[in-house]
Amino acid sequence: MRKLKVLLMSCLATILMSCSLLGNAAESDGWQSLFDGKTLSGWKQINGSAKFEVIDGVIVATADETSKSSYLATELTFGDFIMEFEAKVDSPLNSGVQFRSVSKTSYKNSDVVGYQLEIDPSSRGWTGGIYDKNRGKWLYPLSYNDAGRTAYEKDEWNKFRIEAIGNVLRTYVNGTATANLSDNQTSEGFFALEIESTAGDISKLGNQVSWRNIRVKTQDLDQERWSNGKTIAEVNFIPNELTEGQIAEGWELLWDGKTTQGWKGAKLDSFPPIGWEIKDGVLSVLSSGGAESRNGGDITTLEEFSDFELEVDFNITTGANSGIKYFVDPTLLKGEGSAIGLEFQILDDDTHPDAKKGVAGNRTVGSLYDLIAARNLTELKRDNKYFNDIGYWNRARVVVQAGDVQHWLNGIKVVEFNRHSQIFDALVAYSKYSKWQNFGGWEKGPILLQDHGDLVHFRSIKIKRLNRVEEK
Amino acid sequence: MRKLKVLLMSCLATILMSCSLLGNAAESDGWQSLFDGKTLSGWKQINGSAKFEVIDGVIVATADETSKSSYLATELTFGDFIMEFEAKVDSPLNSGVQFRSVSKTSYKNSDVVGYQLEIDPSSRGWTGGIYDKNRGKWLYPLSYNDAGRTAYEKDEWNKFRIEAIGNVLRTYVNGTATANLSDNQTSEGFFALEIESTAGDISKLGNQVSWRNIRVKTQDLDQERWSNGKTIAEVNFIPNELTEGQIAEGWELLWDGKTTQGWKGAKLDSFPPIGWEIKDGVLSVLSSGGAESRNGGDITTLEEFSDFELEVDFNITTGANSGIKYFVDPTLLKGEGSAIGLEFQILDDDTHPDAKKGVAGNRTVGSLYDLIAARNLTELKRDNKYFNDIGYWNRARVVVQAGDVQHWLNGIKVVEFNRHSQIFDALVAYSKYSKWQNFGGWEKGPILLQDHGDLVHFRSIKIKRLNRVEEK
Repeated sequence: MRKLKVLLMSCLATILMSCSLLGNAAESDGWQSLFDGKTLSGWKQINGSAKFEVIDGVIVATADETSKSSYLATELTFGDFIMEFEAKVDSPLNSGVQFRSVSKTSYKNSDVVGYQLEIDPSSRGWTGGIYDKNRGKWLYPLSYNDAGRTAYEKDEWNKFRIEAIGNVLRTYVNGTATANLSDNQTSEGFFALEIESTAGDISKLGNQVSWRNIRVKTQDLDQERWSNGKTIAEVNFIPNELTEGQIAEGWELLWDGKTTQGWKGAKLDSFPPIGWEIKDGVLSVLSSGGAESRNGGDITTLEEFSDFELEVDFNITTGANSGIKYFVDPTLLKGEGSAIGLEFQILDDDTHPDAKKGVAGNRTVGSLYDLIAARNLTELKRDNKYFNDIGYWNRARVVVQAGDVQHWLNGIKVVEFNRHSQIFDALVAYSKYSKWQNFGGWEKGPILLQDHGDLVHFRSIKIKRLNRVEEK
Repeated sequence: MRKLKVLLMSCLATILMSCSLLGNAAESDGWQSLFDGKTLSGWKQINGSAKFEVIDGVIVATADETSKSSYLATELTFGDFIMEFEAKVDSPLNSGVQFRSVSKTSYKNSDVVGYQLEIDPSSRGWTGGIYDKNRGKWLYPLSYNDAGRTAYEKDEWNKFRIEAIGNVLRTYVNGTATANLSDNQTSEGFFALEIESTAGDISKLGNQVSWRNIRVKTQDLDQERWSNGKTIAEVNFIPNELTEGQIAEGWELLWDGKTTQGWKGAKLDSFPPIGWEIKDGVLSVLSSGGAESRNGGDITTLEEFSDFELEVDFNITTGANSGIKYFVDPTLLKGEGSAIGLEFQILDDDTHPDAKKGVAGNRTVGSLYDLIAARNLTELKRDNKYFNDIGYWNRARVVVQAGDVQHWLNGIKVVEFNRHSQIFDALVAYSKYSKWQNFGGWEKGPILLQDHGDLVHFRSIKIKRLNRVEEK
């Protein structure tokens, strides 16, 4: 039934889109064309040396051999809007359209910064995803939306739509909802058409990207908004807030952004008097020289959890070590040392020595600490994790249901295992956790943030309790 | 379609059974009653002290407190036959009916020996399975036949049927086919009704087993045979032979029972001139003091295999160590030492020191050697493996498909893992195999029998190649 509904909505959306595009020339209903069909009037090139030109009523860009992307940006900026365009991209070239974007001499040498609707002809099929150009990395990869991954038609003309209304940013590819993001980093900026350089890949040399029928609407947006955009998975980066959709889905904030309510020292009766700081919506474990749980010590939720989906945003400093633990038993290890439980490792892989310790990388960021090394399980043929640089926010996500556990780092699944499986027991038996009976298999436990003596920031700590389902 | 067919057959079988039982009193169509409804004439008690008596036309046995099972056996013996009876067993008592069974003063103090149709009211639901009383253990546990596990009605009258024709032994519970076994250990023997003792379990004290409508037919058996019995999984213990059904399914003998054809030394161009012996349908690795691959050395198949189902029967001597390896690369480890590959461990857990070495039991019989300790994964709430004592044959089974690997020992799944999974890589990284790149992940390899310097016998080595299916 739900599938049928989605299908109907998708059809309806396509029909609506076709109708609205027909009205393009007339600029009816408040739509405003951003391309006159003949000249690049109203546009300016930012960065890169790829040539943008108008050929037969179409803006055409041709990939050149430099190492930088080239952008053709609108001279005007836009805040709330609905924007549509058509694009055709020669595979294997990657492309995209920036929105609410800026370019400042003071930041990254005037490079383009901001949201990009991705056009990605590769096998992962993330066209319609939202990438955070020159800030973090992926805000809405299509790992969140499998159905959206097939909306794009390779090497054909495709119809795109961006709805940016308040903090809600949604994209559509050929009528299919592809991204549903809540974010408040930039409320206004230009549009920019992007073509990547060939960057030495001769298979891309001469590849072209074409755009046409580019138009925008800035008034009466609520009526114009499509309804299928809110039916797909929602990703929310607004700090320490839940969206209406998340509240309806059962998400709860584990931290209120202001107080210590709901938390305590892992081995204390109350919140640690030292070692932790709350300031400007950020919960920070303070630096004390890198030792494990010797300053304020770990903190845990007062509540315990069984099956859940957990999200924690974290922002590390150079060389930092910390972690998010779950299924913790704080009573096991008395005295000094971090409490015992499964751990989503937080680490500066580049400079902390632990990254090269452990076994086969099982102490790197995103790993199940000391047990399973994080690797990219979402994208076939790509090995790399996506870690946002020091000073940027990263998102940890832990999903636990019916024994199955997944770690996600910035929208990429990096670890999966079943905590009740024979092979998990075999792995634990080899590790330093072998001495804790049924380690990782306990029925429930609190969520823990680790004090490893390094300055690490946390925010947007939220959880959705999942219904118990029977184990396979 | 296949389900429908099975359902129809099952219905038909039930109808046929009902009809045939109606004719019981008349002894029509060559059926012969084994119980006159009034006395125990034609029966004699063997072992145990439970009382067997006739009450209201039914043979009733009542569990007593001794530690031995009690049997009421026919005075006559039977070779080929079809036998039917009804039985009602008070839960949680276990019961069964012996067939082609013997009792000899020279063996186990005259205890009953031979095939038993099991009546098993426990949660695993193995009623209708065939147990090898006082020889091996399970010949046909219902781990092979999930559909059969629900045929039995607890604490009710149930209809049973045994077809023993030549080497083919089949059982039915309420018309559902439950076991389909080929075995040639005993061609003739008595029937015996079994009641187990309470063995100190007071919940069983006073539990009764009742039998009625016991009849047998010994002529014109082929016409009388039900057809649904051959539709369920077949288990074959006839040494070094395939049944017609197995040949049709694609099984191949890896060893012909007589020659060295198809095998060679793992690190040699031909079969080892010493260290291995072929005699009376048994392939034996000879004792040379317990060292690894120092005498004849390991032997491997000439052929390589990818996805397959492998069966190897093995029979160890006291304190012995050996193994069956798969996905082997004999070129990796030059010189001395066993070739590198995944290993179904063969060990005398009771007396070989390796059983207590390794990590958490991962060197015990049935284990994925040095990686995953074998345990009973088939029966919830039971931890024990079923190992047939020194001098008896045991069956190793390895199933590999789409990365998923299972070890089975005597019909019980004891190990499962995915050889291409992240957690398998994490486990290998902890083990001594970490130095062999992609250990266990290779596309194909020969099957290997290990020379560990101890006398171990092999026979019935067979394989079924499985079609490649796409990995999840």
